[in-house]
Amino acid sequence: MAIETTASGAMTADDLLKHWQGHRRLTRKVIEAFPEDKLFQFSLGGMRPFAEMAAEFIRMAVPIVNGVSTGKWEEFKGPKPATKAELLQLWDAQTVQLNEKFPKIPQHRFREMDKAFGQWETSGLGTILYAVDNEIHHRGQGYVYLRALGITPPNFWER
Amino acid sequence: MAIETTASGAMTADDLLKHWQGHRRLTRKVIEAFPEDKLFQFSLGGMRPFAEMAAEFIRMAVPIVNGVSTGKWEEFKGPKPATKAELLQLWDAQTVQLNEKFPKIPQHRFREMDKAFGQWETSGLGTILYAVDNEIHHRGQGYVYLRALGITPPNFWER
Repeated sequence: MAIETTASGAMTADDLLKHWQGHRRLTRKVIEAFPEDKLFQFSLGGMRPFAEMAAEFIRMAVPIVNGVSTGKWEEFKGPKPATKAELLQLWDAQTVQLNEKFPKIPQHRFREMDKAFGQWETSGLGTILYAVDNEIHHRGQGYVYLRALGITPPNFWER
Repeated sequence: MAIETTASGAMTADDLLKHWQGHRRLTRKVIEAFPEDKLFQFSLGGMRPFAEMAAEFIRMAVPIVNGVSTGKWEEFKGPKPATKAELLQLWDAQTVQLNEKFPKIPQHRFREMDKAFGQWETSGLGTILYAVDNEIHHRGQGYVYLRALGITPPNFWER
């Protein structure tokens, strides 16, 4: 796949990182908004508790940036967070790592096709967008959980 | 604001349109998955029924592309859809309009700051991303409604 080098670039790599980190700040607020027990236990419609969804975001974020950057796809290592504090600690560690690693993605890797984790064939851009969209999607579900618990979620537009 | 014309363009305008239309195809499936009465009446946690959310996506999509394109911000005109068929008809009309209008957005308007609908100050890109993200966010909530109704939603990754 060719590198896009013309004036048709609507969104730069830096825009995409800032966009993602803005969403990640909002997701962090949603994690914080849950009472500890509800974070790990409450759900609706037979779905997962929000802590499971947030752990999924963590399993995806840095491993995807590593994979897009290097072509090496390695699963997230480490135990699943068992408390809100552990979850937030992992979250914050990834915030720093994303800021370090994302700008080092070689430009051609955004358009290059690859098999993410040996399974999902799409461009680097497609894989990163999938991670961001997956986070927005499940966080929206977390909003329903919070509302059902009588808790006002953070404003969607405040990042 | 300057036009981005370097090799740092990770996502082109065409990528962004395709990405959005992929999401819109999925949202259309979610609208279809609701039984007619539940689409307009069912909700959880005191939130809006999914038909209200879908009507919001319609009020945003083409008016935002028009505004980013021309700098003229005009509210969506027309009555609120009252049936699933009306909703899907408006949806499909906007699918065609977006494909026509989006490629005509002048390149510099993606980065130029503007006040969307006289209220929301951000770049054209920011406003379009907001519309896409808002759709993903509320559609995720529609997934919880469907699950709570015992209906299996369409797969998130199938666009």
